[in-house]
Amino acid sequence: MFETLSTLGGGAQVHSVVLGGAGFIGSNLVRALLDRGHRVTVIDNLSRGQRQLLPDPDTTPLFSFIQANLADPRECEAAFEQSAVYPIWEIWHLAANSDIPAGVRDPNVDLHDTFLTTFESLRAASRHSVRVYHFASSSAVYGDWHGVPLRETLGPLRPISNYGAMKLASEAQICAAAEAFLGKANIHRFPNVVGVPATHGVIFDFIGRLARDPTRLVVLGNGTQQKAYLHVSDLVGAMLTVAGRETGPKIEILNVGAVDAGVTVRWIAESVVARVSSRAEIVFGEGDRGWLGDVPKFRYETERVHSYGWSPKLDSKAAVLRAIDDIARSRGL
Amino acid sequence: MFETLSTLGGGAQVHSVVLGGAGFIGSNLVRALLDRGHRVTVIDNLSRGQRQLLPDPDTTPLFSFIQANLADPRECEAAFEQSAVYPIWEIWHLAANSDIPAGVRDPNVDLHDTFLTTFESLRAASRHSVRVYHFASSSAVYGDWHGVPLRETLGPLRPISNYGAMKLASEAQICAAAEAFLGKANIHRFPNVVGVPATHGVIFDFIGRLARDPTRLVVLGNGTQQKAYLHVSDLVGAMLTVAGRETGPKIEILNVGAVDAGVTVRWIAESVVARVSSRAEIVFGEGDRGWLGDVPKFRYETERVHSYGWSPKLDSKAAVLRAIDDIARSRGL
Repeated sequence: MFETLSTLGGGAQVHSVVLGGAGFIGSNLVRALLDRGHRVTVIDNLSRGQRQLLPDPDTTPLFSFIQANLADPRECEAAFEQSAVYPIWEIWHLAANSDIPAGVRDPNVDLHDTFLTTFESLRAASRHSVRVYHFASSSAVYGDWHGVPLRETLGPLRPISNYGAMKLASEAQICAAAEAFLGKANIHRFPNVVGVPATHGVIFDFIGRLARDPTRLVVLGNGTQQKAYLHVSDLVGAMLTVAGRETGPKIEILNVGAVDAGVTVRWIAESVVARVSSRAEIVFGEGDRGWLGDVPKFRYETERVHSYGWSPKLDSKAAVLRAIDDIARSRGL
Repeated sequence: MFETLSTLGGGAQVHSVVLGGAGFIGSNLVRALLDRGHRVTVIDNLSRGQRQLLPDPDTTPLFSFIQANLADPRECEAAFEQSAVYPIWEIWHLAANSDIPAGVRDPNVDLHDTFLTTFESLRAASRHSVRVYHFASSSAVYGDWHGVPLRETLGPLRPISNYGAMKLASEAQICAAAEAFLGKANIHRFPNVVGVPATHGVIFDFIGRLARDPTRLVVLGNGTQQKAYLHVSDLVGAMLTVAGRETGPKIEILNVGAVDAGVTVRWIAESVVARVSSRAEIVFGEGDRGWLGDVPKFRYETERVHSYGWSPKLDSKAAVLRAIDDIARSRGL
């Protein structure tokens, strides 16, 4: 048994609640949902998200914004109580700590921001009879497989960061909720996602460093880390493709990503320098990890999502080059 | 890199802290560790455990007991502070909600008792430089695979109870801790375990019902649920075998269990009636699940632990018959 929009019946207004909707990926998703005619409510604590990335409810009547800390049981319930004035069709859960090193330093960060947001929003979903739940999981759930291609069927999973651990914990709790009350759960394991409005990540960091010192770009690690990247526009397209499917298992767990082998940090550094500050010297560090909990190299198998008729418009190189340009422009460079 | 007792050096006193040591499995483990000459500290909130299952510290000087709620950050830290008077070599984490249906009714039960006990004890392990962590995980992490043999390499895992979800969440957090600071983590996925001092489970329930009404045994479900069972004495033997290995991966994740196909609930009901109240009528319910979140039938692959030289002395039938007798005797039947 699973539920798709066609279950709702033609003509009814779809109400989508987007948790963490004021963040990088969330704000892109919100625009796409509004473009499709959904009613959209964003719940975000604005700890990393930004209110100005979202529409103005005065001029966009189908849009509402609620500031709340979803990890807090009372705040979460109050926010859902307010949202449920219009019955909620689906939850998109993109609220999480996005600063992996911060979570490595203090596990409480990912406990609260990455896991308890899931836990409390599922309790709210149960109380408000929400039947469809879409989740932003992560390739970080896999841990370091030393080059073994990452397929959804791998096990056992051994995440190496608290962030990855709390994403896997969230997946587990969503599965239990699907047994108990959800009609459909889509768990997307995100790759490295690039684009604007960037708030973190390697491209964002490099451009920030060059803005401070245009003569020198210091890179953590030796630059050999190699990963695939997906542009946020393609990611949103993938999630909407999966959400729109009329068939499939009740719990869908799938990798989302490009099909290519990715690019190295060295190539990204050179591309950023070429676009932003071509006379800068690049200074590499040592080792193949940018930080504790970083996975230096992985191949991401994405056949399942491609079999659903989605493929990215931009491969890793094109996605990174577009994101460099996006971010540079957003900073007036 | 991994750590075993030989790393500690000959002659040093091994200090084992057993979380949930006043419970069914924990109290059996505590006796085995004391028999091996370890110093043992039990931390238990006595919500389901019982103080009288444990030795008296006055007559067993190597044993200490601390009552604390491990899910509470302050209580957990205070208990570890007190334990660490003798440097802690290893943690055995067996504290959890053991009442799966209770956790299905209220997800907060498993959040606190099953997951936050793991989370907080790992933080304490980090602060007190504990390098070895043994964890009681569960076959419930797998969810319902409809008869596919459950191997450690299966994925993706979709637990169907909050209990299974919070055991998987615990595994994930332990893996992240192993990346950050642990020297060795052994994650045992327990099967159905039987024996005394039983506090729950199908045999315990059946004997309790017959004690109340010796003429009638009402069984939840139609009795066709089939599972393998392991006697607690064999389980403790398996854990100590794994703990004593000098080689192996830093994170060991393995199923522990018997090699047979198991026994049905109907066979257990008949065996209990034969031992306890031979004139009782057995009344079966409908459906193949005892409760929401119950997995009706599974085959448990345990080749990995057997390859380490351990095998159970009792198969499922023998384990269940012994446990029926154990429990009946403990109730004076």
